[in-house]
Amino acid sequence: MTRVGDGSPAAALAWLSRTVEPGNRDLWAYVGSLGAVEVAEQLHAGDGPRRLQNAAGERWSEDRSLHDLEAAARCGARLLTPDDDEWPRDITDLMGAAASAGAQQCVPPIALWVRGPMSLARGLARAVAIVGARAATGYGEYVAGDLALGLAERQVTVVSGGANGIDGAAHRSALGGGGGTVAVLGCGIDRFYPRSNDLLLAQIAQHGALVSEWPPGAAAMRNRFLVRNRLIAAFGLGTVVVEAALRSGARSTAGRARDLGRVVMTVPGPVTSATSAGCLQMLRDEGAVPVGSTAHVLEAIALPGIDLAPDERGADRPGDELDQGLGALLDAVPARRPAPAEAIARTSALAAPEVLRGLTVLELMGYVQQLDGRWRRAPG
Amino acid sequence: MTRVGDGSPAAALAWLSRTVEPGNRDLWAYVGSLGAVEVAEQLHAGDGPRRLQNAAGERWSEDRSLHDLEAAARCGARLLTPDDDEWPRDITDLMGAAASAGAQQCVPPIALWVRGPMSLARGLARAVAIVGARAATGYGEYVAGDLALGLAERQVTVVSGGANGIDGAAHRSALGGGGGTVAVLGCGIDRFYPRSNDLLLAQIAQHGALVSEWPPGAAAMRNRFLVRNRLIAAFGLGTVVVEAALRSGARSTAGRARDLGRVVMTVPGPVTSATSAGCLQMLRDEGAVPVGSTAHVLEAIALPGIDLAPDERGADRPGDELDQGLGALLDAVPARRPAPAEAIARTSALAAPEVLRGLTVLELMGYVQQLDGRWRRAPG
Repeated sequence: MTRVGDGSPAAALAWLSRTVEPGNRDLWAYVGSLGAVEVAEQLHAGDGPRRLQNAAGERWSEDRSLHDLEAAARCGARLLTPDDDEWPRDITDLMGAAASAGAQQCVPPIALWVRGPMSLARGLARAVAIVGARAATGYGEYVAGDLALGLAERQVTVVSGGANGIDGAAHRSALGGGGGTVAVLGCGIDRFYPRSNDLLLAQIAQHGALVSEWPPGAAAMRNRFLVRNRLIAAFGLGTVVVEAALRSGARSTAGRARDLGRVVMTVPGPVTSATSAGCLQMLRDEGAVPVGSTAHVLEAIALPGIDLAPDERGADRPGDELDQGLGALLDAVPARRPAPAEAIARTSALAAPEVLRGLTVLELMGYVQQLDGRWRRAPG
Repeated sequence: MTRVGDGSPAAALAWLSRTVEPGNRDLWAYVGSLGAVEVAEQLHAGDGPRRLQNAAGERWSEDRSLHDLEAAARCGARLLTPDDDEWPRDITDLMGAAASAGAQQCVPPIALWVRGPMSLARGLARAVAIVGARAATGYGEYVAGDLALGLAERQVTVVSGGANGIDGAAHRSALGGGGGTVAVLGCGIDRFYPRSNDLLLAQIAQHGALVSEWPPGAAAMRNRFLVRNRLIAAFGLGTVVVEAALRSGARSTAGRARDLGRVVMTVPGPVTSATSAGCLQMLRDEGAVPVGSTAHVLEAIALPGIDLAPDERGADRPGDELDQGLGALLDAVPARRPAPAEAIARTSALAAPEVLRGLTVLELMGYVQQLDGRWRRAPG
């Protein structure tokens, strides 16, 4: 074992956020089971489970954790961990359940770099994501702004991706309406990307929150935006796609919202407009709710089963004690003939999310193996 | 009894089309039961059932039937009756079933004045209605034209109302694409209304069909357009609303299409456009299918259960022999406590459409009465 940073959970999480590319399901499961400090120390010693150690690549031997924490502090940012009161617990629970149920791309974040005065848990208790094309038309930007302004006036936080076009219009109107807004970035919270939005991003840092899973200084990369999209989707009670071409990042965000059971909305536009073609397809093939006003959006997110009021609950998180149950879980895994996770859940009498997380950990530890989505004990 | 015209069914139907305002359910039921000649003679003698005689108003004593038939012939038009091979039998059967099932505004026509070379039964075997705002935008007219052209190229007849705006754009493109087009009018087939469309309507009369329930010379009146809309809806396998304000005639046509079990489609437009507000509401509240291309329309009307090929069947029409069954039906009507039509249908073992038509006739004859939608024998 090799100590990481000052040995604190925060240092461990900072280290992990730089060492293993965010969105890694193995890391989420392993940290949930062993705790961040032990996982970071294992990996930093080169002793982690093979698949995770591979995911760390060449970065395992470096330790910039304290440097990253200082860099964050210098720009007024903080590293939010699941133990913080401000952590959006309901949201990460939802993501965990979805990821365990098979929505591979919904794995919860293990930590969040946050820059701005907004309390994330409170700000996200009533939030809607508005996303869309970077190459938006005047029509799209107008509608995005109109919706964001209406939401701001009703104390609903506007979540988006900080990009040009629809994202920027939504953030700007939310700020202009005196409302909360959260930009979820695919780069460090000290990097204003795209540069053309630097004034806007600075304003969000001053009045709302910039959020990222990547450490300070991390560069914007295409794949990071796709990984980031699941957070935008999770942060909103619903996601509104304002303008989207047939292939677009906004539609990937809508896909994550659907995976998470969130409401997926879209703004119809001219059928002659390429930037509305994705919206039409969402209406035709994906059952997206057509919306044209803030009232429509509010009606959609207030569907039965979705509570606009923050959920009052204790700090206990299901799964915290799972490592104690790993033995019991292992007992439930068949030795030869692979069984699906649901069957193992029934045998072990554990809840399905815990079972899948536990199985992933047991797999990382080499106790079980996965074959075509079914599980059995590892040979020997 | 007083003979009407030359005593032929055609003269009787011509006389009825001028004497009783089209869309009258009593007339449809009574003619279906007694035949047009006898009904016309009763009314022309002032001896019809009170409600029908009232509907005829002061016009019962006049007889312009032969004059109207001549006027039609002079402009190259004909009076189509249910006995003609060209009569769109399937469509009027569908309307009759819907009217009997409670869709009051779907009563079938008793006769149709037709002007143009198209055989109505064949032209309507594959047809789609395209309707929308008179005060259309360039966007709406473009899309209506694009859809109509695509349908024309696939030998699908375009049905509309001959009005300015969307209707006109749809007719024009269908003609331009060499396809069939039918304009269903709310005035006589010799009146080109609106005047601004007179060239277009003349072209339709030359290459497609102008259709009306009103006799030659009948003036365009607001209520007639609403009554007419059910024919537009029935004539298409589906109805596409291209642009519609929140209140619009096009939406009444869509309502009739829904009553008839036809596919209701709408073209999304900018949510900022008042002429697309009705389309958005149709998407949100009425389950209209969003369409943006001819392929979308063809996909929608080819849903299972809707046969694009003309239905091959004999000339027998259910209900032709109903008058023979009226006695049996009357036996099934309770003497005191009113019963719903379905209960009477069960007792009488007649099909529901025949029962409702028969009850209406029995009511006209004074044998039964209707109380809050339930039926019993008339006292005395």
